[in-house]
Amino acid sequence: MSEKLIRLKEILGEVSDLNRAISVLGWDQQVNMPPGGAEARGQQLATLGKIAQEKFTADEVGILLEDLMKEFFDPETDDGAMIRVAARTYDKAKRVPPEFVAEQAVAATQGVEAWVAAKHKSDFSIFRPYLEKNVELVKKYVSFFPPAAHPYDVLLDDFEPGLPTAEVLEIFGNLRPKQVALIKAISEAKQVKSDFLKKSFNEKKVWDFGEKIITKFGYDFKRGRQDKAPHPFETTFSVDDVRITNRFEKNAPLATLFSAMHECGHALYELGVNPAYERTPLASGTSLAIHESQSRMWENLVGRSLPFWEHFYPDLKKTFPSQLDGVSAKTFYKAINQVEPSFIRVNADEATYNLHIMLRLEIEISMVDGSIEVKDLPEIWNAKMRDYLGVTPPNDAQGVLQDIHWSYGSIGYFSTYALGNIVSAQLWEKINKDIKNLDEQTRKGEFAELREWLRVNIHQYGHKYDPRDLVRKITGHDIDSAAYVRYLMKKYTDIYGL
Amino acid sequence: MSEKLIRLKEILGEVSDLNRAISVLGWDQQVNMPPGGAEARGQQLATLGKIAQEKFTADEVGILLEDLMKEFFDPETDDGAMIRVAARTYDKAKRVPPEFVAEQAVAATQGVEAWVAAKHKSDFSIFRPYLEKNVELVKKYVSFFPPAAHPYDVLLDDFEPGLPTAEVLEIFGNLRPKQVALIKAISEAKQVKSDFLKKSFNEKKVWDFGEKIITKFGYDFKRGRQDKAPHPFETTFSVDDVRITNRFEKNAPLATLFSAMHECGHALYELGVNPAYERTPLASGTSLAIHESQSRMWENLVGRSLPFWEHFYPDLKKTFPSQLDGVSAKTFYKAINQVEPSFIRVNADEATYNLHIMLRLEIEISMVDGSIEVKDLPEIWNAKMRDYLGVTPPNDAQGVLQDIHWSYGSIGYFSTYALGNIVSAQLWEKINKDIKNLDEQTRKGEFAELREWLRVNIHQYGHKYDPRDLVRKITGHDIDSAAYVRYLMKKYTDIYGL
Repeated sequence: MSEKLIRLKEILGEVSDLNRAISVLGWDQQVNMPPGGAEARGQQLATLGKIAQEKFTADEVGILLEDLMKEFFDPETDDGAMIRVAARTYDKAKRVPPEFVAEQAVAATQGVEAWVAAKHKSDFSIFRPYLEKNVELVKKYVSFFPPAAHPYDVLLDDFEPGLPTAEVLEIFGNLRPKQVALIKAISEAKQVKSDFLKKSFNEKKVWDFGEKIITKFGYDFKRGRQDKAPHPFETTFSVDDVRITNRFEKNAPLATLFSAMHECGHALYELGVNPAYERTPLASGTSLAIHESQSRMWENLVGRSLPFWEHFYPDLKKTFPSQLDGVSAKTFYKAINQVEPSFIRVNADEATYNLHIMLRLEIEISMVDGSIEVKDLPEIWNAKMRDYLGVTPPNDAQGVLQDIHWSYGSIGYFSTYALGNIVSAQLWEKINKDIKNLDEQTRKGEFAELREWLRVNIHQYGHKYDPRDLVRKITGHDIDSAAYVRYLMKKYTDIYGL
Repeated sequence: MSEKLIRLKEILGEVSDLNRAISVLGWDQQVNMPPGGAEARGQQLATLGKIAQEKFTADEVGILLEDLMKEFFDPETDDGAMIRVAARTYDKAKRVPPEFVAEQAVAATQGVEAWVAAKHKSDFSIFRPYLEKNVELVKKYVSFFPPAAHPYDVLLDDFEPGLPTAEVLEIFGNLRPKQVALIKAISEAKQVKSDFLKKSFNEKKVWDFGEKIITKFGYDFKRGRQDKAPHPFETTFSVDDVRITNRFEKNAPLATLFSAMHECGHALYELGVNPAYERTPLASGTSLAIHESQSRMWENLVGRSLPFWEHFYPDLKKTFPSQLDGVSAKTFYKAINQVEPSFIRVNADEATYNLHIMLRLEIEISMVDGSIEVKDLPEIWNAKMRDYLGVTPPNDAQGVLQDIHWSYGSIGYFSTYALGNIVSAQLWEKINKDIKNLDEQTRKGEFAELREWLRVNIHQYGHKYDPRDLVRKITGHDIDSAAYVRYLMKKYTDIYGL
């Protein structure tokens, strides 16, 4: 290995160590930290972030990368891919002045605070000036980059490298009318029974059942753990320490099971990355959409399937005999797949979820190109909800204020959720070609072959391939919604007898 | 504030943030980390430590300190004290080459590994070469400093700034014959009954009782938390996030209560530091001995006193009615103060504890000045145990291998434990002059005035005063063992009817 490459890896290794330490501090903040710790923790995170940024954007790194690009640029080698990914991130980081990063961090902190207050009072006007500030900063951020076809391209590229806005709009454009039609058809069909899901379930028993499921999925508690936190998330401290969090909500007690499967899906991705990538920019999932394709696959394509519950339902019923008294596996399966247009994205079912995303994407694009104004957001939001889902949020808290993302200036992120759903179905069709008896294995509670397929075809590569390239490499096709539409139609035709 | 001082505080603030982050990572390692996380965590800790060291020892810091020493050097001001403490630490850090620090870190890791194996097999010969290496490195460390009266002075100064070896030996020299005589007198007296302490106690109930006690002491769970770990310790993430750990051992179930009080004593010190010192070198206890004076005070002078149990015993008895059936408060009090020469330091009672320390100090001094050889340690250890405590360890695991400290190269640390005991009694006499009805308050379970006395006289100052100066400032005397001897004599005369 050339001395330059060794030196580059040394620096990137330190940057990685700092970023992993930031993750530990962030996890502790959500999971353990007593309230008194908040102020100092913010300062500690800011300092570590600043040092990581300084180390990464040092001129030495730029010179090393430039020299190495000449030597090594074979993207099929690990080192070549690492240099390519590092160079792209370096280029982005160098364009954005440190003072701007600091300004954005302050605006983010203030934005979250205002959002919490606004949501609490269900009053968008409290949040409005902070969102205006965030949008202004996002526009300024875009201005640091070369002009793109659409200013939103710059933002999207941070989450889905190489995927332009126009393509996402095309993918979503194809999908939207079909999902809207499906929802309409379902609304006119005979509805399914699901009242038993609202009964009282013992928290510890649900939690333990979730851990039983993800242990079968292959989540290794010697290389991870599940803790309680206000929101479920996955976080990576190293390829051998990938943790997840979960919560329990009395009004949706079994949601904990699906959150466990979802976060386990993220965790299996990170646990499956080639250990040789540790401490390099390749050592994590390649994009949010691909990550979400994994979490949604385990949560929905596996965890909300009939074969899955044919295996687990007898045990669930034994665990909760009174709650599930007289409920068959098929009835249970239908209930957890019930379609019901609702106000809140995170509670949405598979048939309606993507429409929540499309609405957000359209609003984000229009905020960034200036074609709508922040002050008009509640009205625009509610109009789109009526158009796509046929419901009108009763207030801002259940409407435009429901998600935290915009409060900390994250714009460009939402579409990755829907793209993840779409990609998960594309992968699923390919997997079912490669593993002929997948349903049968699921019916036996066996997931090793599926997990191994994912590890070999996706997980191990970490950040080596860009998301579109990875999907093409595996499926032979670009990202598109056809497989997802086929999946939805088949599933809901069965459930609702369409 | 001068621009130089602002700049110095900025750098020291970042160094503090890094060190606090290191503490979070270390705590997580002990409390939460799945086994898989170990390797990467070691790397992360090494990187953060290296960056903190680099930042702190930058030439800029030296120049700033030198300039500021001229401007500001009034040690009675906070800034003056901060500059003095920072300059001393800087001078020490600059003398030790980074390569040496790295070499010592590697030797420490290997030493701990060898110690674990050696202790497991109770075979000193496995550990011997690693301890020899550590002693060699410690001697080299000493060589980086100007010659002192005794080479051990350099090591001791890292833990007890300003306290030379000769003085510690004098303090201990005065104390030793009195403690040895006391133990002899006790051994000839009528023994106390304590078999009920070995009964089976429910872990959760003991844990909760410990938390009840430390809540009464004033430990604020909004600014801290208690978790399970292999060893009890206290760790500070900020003045408002000070955590403790504890354990439960079936063969000493109520030890958990005393560990909780001990670590709470450390935590109250850190929680009481002037918040204005946050992110400066003043923001923690001034030395290990003063820290230990706090932990031992809450554990022993408060927690093993008769008034304390006059308050808590009825509740304890209600919690464990069968275990404590027929046991009076006085009998319980005598049992938890039973004197019994034993092999293991951490299990030692107040009458014998310091002798374990003196033995270690003498061995450390002789290792450092070369008057004894590592290979002879087991024999020397056992001989001293016979001399001081009249017992002979049956094997190395219960003898020379019992403590972890030497395995990671920590030499110079042990005497602070005994000094803490000694100082705690000096402070206690002063406190009882200032708070006339302290026993009465304790008997009512009221600790606010005691805690506030400690905060005002000790805690708030953090690192502002050196340990000897602080003791002089409070008591009017230098550190000496007279008060501790008075305390022991009075206590054990009562318990054993001497």
